[in-house]
Amino acid sequence: MGLLVVGSLALDSVETPFDKINEALGGSATYISLAASYFSGPVELVGVVGSDFPREYIDLLRRNNIDLEGLQIIEGEKTFRWGGKYHYDLNVRDTLFTELNAFQNFNPIIPERFQKSKFVCLGNIDPLLQIRVLDQLNDPQLVVCDTMNYWIEGMKDDLLKLLRRVNVLIINDSEARLLTNEPNLIKASRLIRKLGPEILILKKGEHGAMLFMDDTIFSAPAYPLETIFDPTGAGDTFAGGFIGYLHKTRDLSSDNLKRAVIYGSSMASFCVEQFSTKALEDLSYLKIQDRFREFKNLSNFDQLEIDK
Amino acid sequence: MGLLVVGSLALDSVETPFDKINEALGGSATYISLAASYFSGPVELVGVVGSDFPREYIDLLRRNNIDLEGLQIIEGEKTFRWGGKYHYDLNVRDTLFTELNAFQNFNPIIPERFQKSKFVCLGNIDPLLQIRVLDQLNDPQLVVCDTMNYWIEGMKDDLLKLLRRVNVLIINDSEARLLTNEPNLIKASRLIRKLGPEILILKKGEHGAMLFMDDTIFSAPAYPLETIFDPTGAGDTFAGGFIGYLHKTRDLSSDNLKRAVIYGSSMASFCVEQFSTKALEDLSYLKIQDRFREFKNLSNFDQLEIDK
Repeated sequence: MGLLVVGSLALDSVETPFDKINEALGGSATYISLAASYFSGPVELVGVVGSDFPREYIDLLRRNNIDLEGLQIIEGEKTFRWGGKYHYDLNVRDTLFTELNAFQNFNPIIPERFQKSKFVCLGNIDPLLQIRVLDQLNDPQLVVCDTMNYWIEGMKDDLLKLLRRVNVLIINDSEARLLTNEPNLIKASRLIRKLGPEILILKKGEHGAMLFMDDTIFSAPAYPLETIFDPTGAGDTFAGGFIGYLHKTRDLSSDNLKRAVIYGSSMASFCVEQFSTKALEDLSYLKIQDRFREFKNLSNFDQLEIDK
Repeated sequence: MGLLVVGSLALDSVETPFDKINEALGGSATYISLAASYFSGPVELVGVVGSDFPREYIDLLRRNNIDLEGLQIIEGEKTFRWGGKYHYDLNVRDTLFTELNAFQNFNPIIPERFQKSKFVCLGNIDPLLQIRVLDQLNDPQLVVCDTMNYWIEGMKDDLLKLLRRVNVLIINDSEARLLTNEPNLIKASRLIRKLGPEILILKKGEHGAMLFMDDTIFSAPAYPLETIFDPTGAGDTFAGGFIGYLHKTRDLSSDNLKRAVIYGSSMASFCVEQFSTKALEDLSYLKIQDRFREFKNLSNFDQLEIDK
């Protein structure tokens, strides 16, 4: 019973107030797979790159227990490239360039061996492609999906079709408001869950994340970091930790979903401490457990019964 | 060992997308005292109103175990009036008018009986007046203080003098960034605590609140409300619940400070459910305990040790 991840692989050039890097490993499928691999492997990756995709990145993914049978390498094409710049306030970023290259005509083909996967994470790509992935699968049990303002604004009908087939939607708070035209996040979450996903996770950056499921609302803090080196990939890493932990434990109770949100948050907190995927390349399970415990200290409290 | 509250009393006219009210009871000292009174009374209030201040509001405060010996009623003057309008997105508000009236020349005089108070809450007023209050006190044990962007921008030197004498500063996240010129809230909190307050609480509206104390960082969620009727006074109500609970328990350990933050958040969540002080007029301790428990469900989780 596999864990399938579909999304982008990219070469990212990122500038922050602290440093800059050129053509580092990036892309939603990359971050999701690397994060998930710490919980449950091999992770089945489906994506596309050009023939210029560095051999060392292929090796890095393989070394991290990621099955690349579904990775298309298009001869003569270049890999998707993205360039971005973060300002001193890291909540704001400018996209400097986007070169889709091989990603432009991406047609996700799910290898037969992957079609029986029960856990699926659809990274942020065209909702029509996300639907095409689901069409090739044989009765998945848990479909987790990400999207972004670009698809909400430009492809809303297709997105709505997709959402009817999704179990967990992971988006950020501004995307939730955009999707529903409702400023109150609690109301917005109720509206979104009527569109299909039984479970909604709202990412709020420095303010943490919220889980909505049945009658449960769970609010997870963000890890308090004084220095965020590179926010790129934090959301994808969250999704990877989240689904990786669920795939490992096979427990979809609300108590376990809460833990999955904390594991996702833990992985995201590591991600932003270094450039690109660096922090996700040699983590240990012990470190992840330690961070999970730090989240517990950060948000748990006890009640003292006092009389009045 | 009393609990002293100094701040404004006002007649508020508030318009929201849901309703509007005219000349309802308002002001920082009002909200702080009412919230604190559910934990620990009598609350000693020091403030000023004009002779037009309605008798029914005096009665309301007295009925809620608030000691008004320090309330100055200026004959022939009018009470401080404030008018504001909230938009559909309740995070944004416009001030329609501010008439300082009797508040213009407020000189806080602490009655002798109140000067021995050990717990003090300085509502958001001119830092020079907040200093003048402290000068009249006989060795307070815990000074909690609020301020706002107006004083940070216009009276920074006086504010810095005040902060050296304050134990707990309660401000919102944008005020913390303004005070330190630092966008990262964790860094900003470290800088602020170097200015004097051992304990800092950052209010983040719909994103909850954070407590910084010794090496402890605690992140409290906001109560998930679908309808916020009137956000006016939420911050003051938070402060009142916080100091009221601490005054009741006389326990300044970090575990108890966390609880105080949750009681403050609980009181604030009630406050915004109705206009003006309505929700704070007939709460029960049972309801407050229930809401505290809801906060526990909202943010606590347990760890499941899994092997890898």
